[in-house]
Amino acid sequence: MKTDIQIANEANLEHISTIAEKLGMTEDDIEFYGKYKAKLSDELWEKVKDNEDGKLVLVTAINPTPAGEGKTTTTVGLGQAMGKLGKNAIIALREPSLGPCMGIKGGAAGGGYAQVVPMEDINLHFTGDIHAVSIAHNLLSAMLDNHLQQGNVLGIDPRQIIWKRVVDMNDRALRSIIVGLGGKMQGVPREDGFMISVASEVMAILCLAEDIADLKERLGQIVVAYSYEGKPITAGDLKAQGAMAALLKDAVKPNLVQTLENTPAIMHGGPFANIAHGCNSIRATKLALKLSDIVITEAGFGADLGAEKFLDIKCRKGNLHPDAIVIVATIRALKYNGGVKKDALSEENVEAVDAGFVNLEKHIENLQQYHVPIVVTLNSFITDSEKEINLVKEKCEAMGCEFALSEVWAKGGEGGISLAKKVIHTLETKESHFQPLYDEQDTIEEKVSSVAQKIYGANDVHYTAKAKKAIKKIVEMGLDKLPICIAKTQYSFSDNPKLLGRPEGFDITVREARVSAGAGFIVLITGNVMTMPGLPKKPSAEDIDVDHEGNITGLF
Amino acid sequence: MKTDIQIANEANLEHISTIAEKLGMTEDDIEFYGKYKAKLSDELWEKVKDNEDGKLVLVTAINPTPAGEGKTTTTVGLGQAMGKLGKNAIIALREPSLGPCMGIKGGAAGGGYAQVVPMEDINLHFTGDIHAVSIAHNLLSAMLDNHLQQGNVLGIDPRQIIWKRVVDMNDRALRSIIVGLGGKMQGVPREDGFMISVASEVMAILCLAEDIADLKERLGQIVVAYSYEGKPITAGDLKAQGAMAALLKDAVKPNLVQTLENTPAIMHGGPFANIAHGCNSIRATKLALKLSDIVITEAGFGADLGAEKFLDIKCRKGNLHPDAIVIVATIRALKYNGGVKKDALSEENVEAVDAGFVNLEKHIENLQQYHVPIVVTLNSFITDSEKEINLVKEKCEAMGCEFALSEVWAKGGEGGISLAKKVIHTLETKESHFQPLYDEQDTIEEKVSSVAQKIYGANDVHYTAKAKKAIKKIVEMGLDKLPICIAKTQYSFSDNPKLLGRPEGFDITVREARVSAGAGFIVLITGNVMTMPGLPKKPSAEDIDVDHEGNITGLF
Repeated sequence: MKTDIQIANEANLEHISTIAEKLGMTEDDIEFYGKYKAKLSDELWEKVKDNEDGKLVLVTAINPTPAGEGKTTTTVGLGQAMGKLGKNAIIALREPSLGPCMGIKGGAAGGGYAQVVPMEDINLHFTGDIHAVSIAHNLLSAMLDNHLQQGNVLGIDPRQIIWKRVVDMNDRALRSIIVGLGGKMQGVPREDGFMISVASEVMAILCLAEDIADLKERLGQIVVAYSYEGKPITAGDLKAQGAMAALLKDAVKPNLVQTLENTPAIMHGGPFANIAHGCNSIRATKLALKLSDIVITEAGFGADLGAEKFLDIKCRKGNLHPDAIVIVATIRALKYNGGVKKDALSEENVEAVDAGFVNLEKHIENLQQYHVPIVVTLNSFITDSEKEINLVKEKCEAMGCEFALSEVWAKGGEGGISLAKKVIHTLETKESHFQPLYDEQDTIEEKVSSVAQKIYGANDVHYTAKAKKAIKKIVEMGLDKLPICIAKTQYSFSDNPKLLGRPEGFDITVREARVSAGAGFIVLITGNVMTMPGLPKKPSAEDIDVDHEGNITGLF
Repeated sequence: MKTDIQIANEANLEHISTIAEKLGMTEDDIEFYGKYKAKLSDELWEKVKDNEDGKLVLVTAINPTPAGEGKTTTTVGLGQAMGKLGKNAIIALREPSLGPCMGIKGGAAGGGYAQVVPMEDINLHFTGDIHAVSIAHNLLSAMLDNHLQQGNVLGIDPRQIIWKRVVDMNDRALRSIIVGLGGKMQGVPREDGFMISVASEVMAILCLAEDIADLKERLGQIVVAYSYEGKPITAGDLKAQGAMAALLKDAVKPNLVQTLENTPAIMHGGPFANIAHGCNSIRATKLALKLSDIVITEAGFGADLGAEKFLDIKCRKGNLHPDAIVIVATIRALKYNGGVKKDALSEENVEAVDAGFVNLEKHIENLQQYHVPIVVTLNSFITDSEKEINLVKEKCEAMGCEFALSEVWAKGGEGGISLAKKVIHTLETKESHFQPLYDEQDTIEEKVSSVAQKIYGANDVHYTAKAKKAIKKIVEMGLDKLPICIAKTQYSFSDNPKLLGRPEGFDITVREARVSAGAGFIVLITGNVMTMPGLPKKPSAEDIDVDHEGNITGLF
């Protein structure tokens, strides 16, 4: 069986100018990064902004399991299938972080015969956007520590600095560090830590900013610390936003690539899906809507985190109106939710599929609350039995959803045609009446309760003393009328990763609260959120190599 | 008076494909990064490698002073002047580090009417090479700390880890840190620190590697730590070199840009000039020699550091034969060397110029030892008097050097024509019999004495106990037959930055020694070497801005 990178290397790529041409662009509208990557120019928006918007389709999934769901693969394959059906479709994805490719996880550009290419470039530096985010973030860190060193006129309390540093690498030794050691000329000693770059608020801002002026304003609003008097200190107080925006001037431009079947793909921005909203940039999605008839996009993790944030944060901020939602599941993942152990997932087990369906059922019910038509798809595995598949199909249809099997991993666009037809049928016959779940003007507690009860299915929400205090501070600062962004385990509807299926009768505990004032949302943390992954015992990096012609191997 | 960025913005840039065409390249030979930057493909070398080499001209300078010398400006202006004279010339420069642009120092792409453009791109992310170096370096750091965390099979002594982390930012608070805090799951606590990215051995390797296979081999040889038994631990022991090379696969390709007057400029690599060799990549220089009749390149700091390393490290490793050397001085800097205070440099003072000439004189004598013809140029300032200039001219000519005034800052290529004519005359009439200063097979102490006595003019060399021990270790490891790279203050021939002019009767003290086994040189440290700069009280970053059209201001 071929690896993803082997399949990718055999692809018949078109020059990126050809892909751009298909979308009605000229060479003036794009900036090449080699032959197969390009950035879409600032002027392009001005040219197309009066076009009619295409239809917006969100791809999301059930809660992730070790069995794998294949959300990105399905998104890419669906786009390829649209191409096969002669539709003018664009795929709009997040761009992957380089760090995790060095650890366990493979790339984030799809898999099998449903991939975005050039996959090795996309998974490594791509067009440098994440590097730009890292350095803009770390400039602010350097200016902050320099302010302490040079007299601290703003009276920043070194114990109350909340702006960590970032690096695009899985590097656990940097989670908790002490900086500024070595004497008077080497800075002010204090506790600090690094996050992986995609956890940066700068990334979230990049993805939510309308344009460069909006970007700069939001950067200036980032709260980096509190003064001894408890006053918030912002990036604007440190006069950092201009230089940060200058460092991001190219990173704000969406990137154009293609699938294995030459479907256009816009990949831009990639914020975390726990402490941030987990979807590609508003600019990219809006541009894609102007350039095509159907835009297929995805959101991070399962629908309880990713779709909720896509709908309540991104769509709200960007005034976007999704027309359909595709929920991806697999027979294996449903069995896993039904209690089957990882090594027994290949055996037929209709009862377990039936038992595990409750997870999918809850996601369907949840998304129906947003009044957007739903299509469910099973990303097929060779071990799936017809009985198992039929059970899922019947249950979905009974809930009023379209259903289709997807075989895009093995067959590319051809394997996604029945899914694509269901999606097209949905777009043509069912109306979307999208509305967000809660009102941003509600109190923070009301907003949290809405999500916890309506989406997670929790009974009640508890707050630690620390969280209560933090919320009080956010209210005092007048920043409470923002959408909320709950950081929760992706493995369960609850805040306990072990409760699979459709847990009931549980409470949620909010342990911390903070405001991402630049991005424009309030982060509520339930449980431990890992913002800096580690490498495993045998990192994938050990197997990555490049030959004398520049061909990379070992990247999955 | 216009600022550099204003002048740069008014330049009439040609599309980079037009610049490439002038050098006989087709679109297949280059990879675009937008309209005005490109990378030169790996295949290009195969195509041109049998071409006859052009002539190689090194631009260097007297010891830097606060008065400024304008070495890069002269290099660029000389290239522009060659263009005006109808010569097929290429400028080969280092690419600047982004960090210092946020501090005091302006960009490193020339100045006035002698600049390489697009200057804001070049000074910020350019084509991402330095970001790639940073992340390849930090991958090795992460794999090293992960090895400690996962059982430390290699027996690495956490007290003997010499591989620091890097960031492309002036961030003094990261000079000395403790990592791995927070408990058992957060790594092994140990002392660490960050350097600015261009101080990374990875950057030196990138600049000295022949090709990607050589690059990977050198990366594998990097010594990152010693085991409890004192055995060197390499990047190869950690199996990091393949992934590091994969991360550098595009960074090894030289970058093509242009000057304000559309002269081709290849900018590639930018290692420190103290702990590393301070010149652009061998690949870039070799490619430039194949593509043009005259290649004008430069080396870091003054000639005692930059030119010495260019000649003894880069030319030796790359089998390069420089045909002429241009030494840049200014009347103001000579006066400063002659004892005049910074605020009195504008007044005519022939005696001070005469007194300060000894600095230039020593550099000329030094470079004559390499048997390469020399041209001296004065980078003119409006305050220079004719008497002052004539004095320098006479003294240079008496030493057998060509002399020319350069007015490229104010007049661009036009202001460099007399210098260009002298250089052409030198290339046409004087033969170079280049030979390095010392034999790499000499002992470390013999090699250091050669440079200290013949170049710096020192009487003797002392070694601290620490340095002696380190040298003994290098000999034991069998790595002593490599060229040496002395880290010394750039402000004086001696190791005391206050001794201007031509100090005599001084000794040099080697305080530390280490081996850059991947880059292939031995670093001897005299005095404090700053590998992580800090930001000043008012960082330039505070004034950098970008408007809604993406135009950057405040970058000098």
